[in-house]
Amino acid sequence: MTTEFELIDRYFSRPGGNVKLGVGDDAALIETTSGKDLVVTTDTLVCGTHFLSDAKPGKLGYKALAVNLSDLAAMGACPRWGLLAITMPAADDQWLLDFSKGFYELAERHELALIGGDTTRGPLSITVTALGEVASGKALKRSQARVGDELWVSGQIGSAALALRHLRGELRLKGKALDTCMARLEAPTPRVELGCELIGLATSAIDLSDGLVADARHLSSCSNVGIEISYMNVPSISEMVHLKGDLVVRDAVLSGGDDYELLFTVPAGNSLQLDAISARLGLALTRIGQIVSGEGVRVLDHSGGVITLASGGYEHFV
Amino acid sequence: MTTEFELIDRYFSRPGGNVKLGVGDDAALIETTSGKDLVVTTDTLVCGTHFLSDAKPGKLGYKALAVNLSDLAAMGACPRWGLLAITMPAADDQWLLDFSKGFYELAERHELALIGGDTTRGPLSITVTALGEVASGKALKRSQARVGDELWVSGQIGSAALALRHLRGELRLKGKALDTCMARLEAPTPRVELGCELIGLATSAIDLSDGLVADARHLSSCSNVGIEISYMNVPSISEMVHLKGDLVVRDAVLSGGDDYELLFTVPAGNSLQLDAISARLGLALTRIGQIVSGEGVRVLDHSGGVITLASGGYEHFV
Repeated sequence: MTTEFELIDRYFSRPGGNVKLGVGDDAALIETTSGKDLVVTTDTLVCGTHFLSDAKPGKLGYKALAVNLSDLAAMGACPRWGLLAITMPAADDQWLLDFSKGFYELAERHELALIGGDTTRGPLSITVTALGEVASGKALKRSQARVGDELWVSGQIGSAALALRHLRGELRLKGKALDTCMARLEAPTPRVELGCELIGLATSAIDLSDGLVADARHLSSCSNVGIEISYMNVPSISEMVHLKGDLVVRDAVLSGGDDYELLFTVPAGNSLQLDAISARLGLALTRIGQIVSGEGVRVLDHSGGVITLASGGYEHFV
Repeated sequence: MTTEFELIDRYFSRPGGNVKLGVGDDAALIETTSGKDLVVTTDTLVCGTHFLSDAKPGKLGYKALAVNLSDLAAMGACPRWGLLAITMPAADDQWLLDFSKGFYELAERHELALIGGDTTRGPLSITVTALGEVASGKALKRSQARVGDELWVSGQIGSAALALRHLRGELRLKGKALDTCMARLEAPTPRVELGCELIGLATSAIDLSDGLVADARHLSSCSNVGIEISYMNVPSISEMVHLKGDLVVRDAVLSGGDDYELLFTVPAGNSLQLDAISARLGLALTRIGQIVSGEGVRVLDHSGGVITLASGGYEHFV
C-alpha cells in the first residue's frame, strides 16, 4: 500500500534553493528577499473542464505549473516557490512519475522549488500555488493603462483554441499547423522572461487565459479606459494568416483562451526598445491596438468597421 | 449568468491588511515582514473523502481554512494571508454566500486577508493555501525532539473521530457528548495562539490531523527518536473518560484523525510555564509521554503493557 508520505517522498522531494524547510513538515518555511514584494497566485485544472480524461500526465504536470507561472509573468515577477495539491481517484505510480517529470521540467527551467503540497483521493484535479518576487512597488498591474498607450501582445494568438476546436471536430488542422497548435494547447510557454523585461516599461499587463477580447476587457475595466484592437494586426500562426477571414478562425483568435501570451500596454514611442526585447527573447511582439478614452473593447476589421463577437471569452460557470 | 469574476467580487473581496493588491489581478501582491520567515501550507478537502455531500457550506468554509491554520499553528506561525480555490459543479449563490461566511468567520478572527483564488467547474472540492509569518529561524519543526523531552498535547483527543463513528453508525453518542464531538469534527479550533506561545519553549511540534499515533510517528521519524505514550494520560472529553477501556473509543483516541490539536515536545522542567500558558489560553495542556532513544512509537496501557493498534492512522490512498 502506498501512503501519502511515500508518494510525496518518492516524486516530489527534489531539493530546491532558498528553502529553509520544504516538503515533509506541517508547512514550508522560506526566506523572502528584502526589497521585494511577494507575488502569489493559485490555479486549478479539473479533469473534464480543463483537460480530457486521457490527457498525458507529463503534459498535465507541465501545464498545471505553466498556467500559474503565466500569472506571475503578467505581474513581472520572478518565480521562486510552488505548492502542488493533487486529487486523484487512486494512487497511480506511473501517472505520478510522469506528472512529476512534466512539472519539474518547467520548474527547473525557472529554478522554482516545490516546497509543499497535498495528495487526496477524489475526482482528478490539480491545484498549483506559485510564489514569485518582484522589486518592491514595481509589479505590473491591470489597472495602470493610460489613454494614448499602445496595446501590444506577445507570440501568436488563437493557436490553443484552434487545437481545441480540432480535438472537438469543429475544424481540421493538419501538418505543421496541427503540431504547432497542439503544442501551444498542451505546453504553453509562460512568458516569464518577457514579464521581467517589461518592468518599468509597460504600464499594465495581463496574461491571455480567458481569450484576447475577454482579457482586454479586464484591462479596460481595471484601468477605466477604452481599448481598440485592430483584428488584422493580431498575430496568428503563419499557416492561418490566409484564413483570418474565416469565422471559426476569427472566433479562435478573438475569443479562444489558453494562449498564455502577455497582453500589455506601453506609452507611445517605445517600439525600438520592444523590438530589442523581441530579438533578445526570440519572441514576436506585435502592436495590435491602442488605449482610448471611454470604456469597453472594440475590435475593428480591415476597413475600420466594428466586429461583433459571438462569444465573450471563456468564463467558468457560464 | 454568473461569471467567475462576479462570483469573486460578490463573495470574496473583503479588504484586508498588509495587501498591496488582492483579488482581481493576475496574482496578489503582498509585502512580507523584515526579520520574519514565511510559512506556507496547502490542504484540499474533497467531497466524499473529507466531508459528506450534505455538509453545510458554512461549516466547510470554516473547516477548509481551519485545517490550514492548524498547519501554521504547528510551526508557531502567525496567519497572514490566504488563497482559496473552489471547484464546484455549478455556481450556487446561496452555497457560496454561506461558505464565505464560514470562511471569513475564522479569517477575521485571525486577521487573515484573502488575497486570491480560483473558481472552476467540476466535482466539489476546496483547496486553501495559507501563508503566515514567524520570527526568522524560530519556527517549530518536527525534527528537533530530543531524548528526555516530555511529550504534551493540547485539548482533548479523539472527539472528531468519535463524531465520525457516530455519523457512520458505528457507535451512538448523545447529549453533551454528541454536541461536543460534532463541534470538534465540524469546527475544529486551530491552536494558533498556542503555537505562538510555544516558540522558544517547545523543541518540536505537529498538528494532529492523521491521528495521535500516526502523527507521533512523524515526529519520531523526523527527529530520529523513539516516543512512549501513556494511553491513560491521553485526555479525552469528560463523557468518555469512563469508556477509555472500550476498543472503539481507544481506536478513536489513538488512531482517529481530524482533532487539529497540537502534539509537542518540551525539555523536562517546564511544567509551570505550560500551566501558565494553559491558564492564559483557557486550553488544557497535558503531558502524555516522553521522548526515548530508539525509534517508533509505543503506546502503554495502565499496567505498562504495550497496546497493539488495529490501524495506524488516517492515510490518503490506503
